[in-house]
Amino acid sequence: MDNHQQNPESINTASHSRNNNVRIILGSTSTLAGQSYLAYLKDTLTLHFAGISKLLFVPYARPGGISHATYTESAARFFATLNIEVENLGATSDPLQAVSRAEAIFTGGGNTFLLVKTLHELGLMTAIRERVLQGVPYLGTSAGANIGGLTMGTTNDMPIVYPPSFNTMGLVPFNINPHFISGRLSADHMGETRETRIQEFLTQNKMPVVGLPEGSWIQVNGAIITLEGTKAATIFKKDGQPYELTPGSRLLLQ
Amino acid sequence: MDNHQQNPESINTASHSRNNNVRIILGSTSTLAGQSYLAYLKDTLTLHFAGISKLLFVPYARPGGISHATYTESAARFFATLNIEVENLGATSDPLQAVSRAEAIFTGGGNTFLLVKTLHELGLMTAIRERVLQGVPYLGTSAGANIGGLTMGTTNDMPIVYPPSFNTMGLVPFNINPHFISGRLSADHMGETRETRIQEFLTQNKMPVVGLPEGSWIQVNGAIITLEGTKAATIFKKDGQPYELTPGSRLLLQ
Repeated sequence: MDNHQQNPESINTASHSRNNNVRIILGSTSTLAGQSYLAYLKDTLTLHFAGISKLLFVPYARPGGISHATYTESAARFFATLNIEVENLGATSDPLQAVSRAEAIFTGGGNTFLLVKTLHELGLMTAIRERVLQGVPYLGTSAGANIGGLTMGTTNDMPIVYPPSFNTMGLVPFNINPHFISGRLSADHMGETRETRIQEFLTQNKMPVVGLPEGSWIQVNGAIITLEGTKAATIFKKDGQPYELTPGSRLLLQ
Repeated sequence: MDNHQQNPESINTASHSRNNNVRIILGSTSTLAGQSYLAYLKDTLTLHFAGISKLLFVPYARPGGISHATYTESAARFFATLNIEVENLGATSDPLQAVSRAEAIFTGGGNTFLLVKTLHELGLMTAIRERVLQGVPYLGTSAGANIGGLTMGTTNDMPIVYPPSFNTMGLVPFNINPHFISGRLSADHMGETRETRIQEFLTQNKMPVVGLPEGSWIQVNGAIITLEGTKAATIFKKDGQPYELTPGSRLLLQ
């Protein structure tokens, strides 16, 4: 087994011992085409973060163009409409301490390699995982959703930096492919389809993969994991054909 | 500087000391849409491998579906038309020794993470590099072209395994993005464009990147590096706007 796979036993133990008040949303994307940031999740997030006054925002996936501060501002503008204040984890003097006192956590998208490298180097991959399993509500979109899986091995991103490990939080007992889209996007282009890439992942790894299309998300409430949103997800397993799962269905993957 | 970047000084030394009979072809793809394997390169390869009777094929990028032996057969079928025998490196009892006696080397495409992991683990990244710099003609397509660059950091592939390093052969003093294609491939999909991904790479790395479209290739003859084929490449640098380079032009990137 490759060294970027976590031990399945420890993962299953973690998911079985999951606190009943664990609440997680892992969204394929932050933004739908033609909509504003997080708009498609607004009703869901109103419930998800009910009673929360302050959210800790994890901006590390953003590789440039806009600063962590500017990135945090776009999250803050959305959460202001829910009367939730947003704190930039990248601006805290002690990120581990900030995580330990967080009421709620949101990891935004960008480049998964950069996000995972930074989280491991700062000791935050474990710290955020533990806090979420204690019941702190979590939201991750795109790269922030991918790290809810067992490893980052099904990201679509370019390997712009070298992380010390591909292991991620294992909040769910499978891997996630965000922005999942089926088939060949350009008829005369020879690059692999998303399905081929995920099938190639399964030649080297054992865990199931959820191909999560934009508009849908994975929701964890205690021991119950469901697919939510508007589009069917595609489930890939090492043995057997991929199949579609309709929103509203439980995800019973080990 | 990240630990997956080679020292620029050592790279420049390597390229400056390049043997005058070094001959390298780095192709964006093995196959053009609607054509057979390597057909678009046949005339070029007839010259490139003139006088060669046996080619060593590096099949490690292929993650499954077809075996290394079957993969080698498809290369062998093509090279039989040039009267060149093909040996499967994956079937040799001593791969390092096989490289040391190779008359010519061809690395096929597939998954770059798997290829780079295997080459590093077997000590072949350095061995093949040294052999090519001694004047053994090299062909790489797709993943096999990407590893001709300084690092694999501009691959499009999914990180299905964890390589011990992202460093590659540095046969040319820049990075390569194979299967380069410009713009948004699906109007309502929010995944990043190829340009955005490469620009994100340049926020974390210093080397130039050649966005190499299908149908074009990089050719090295001694100290001269040129773009060849039918389509312009896009050159990305850390500072300045990307620009197009016409086939037939020299690549003067440091």
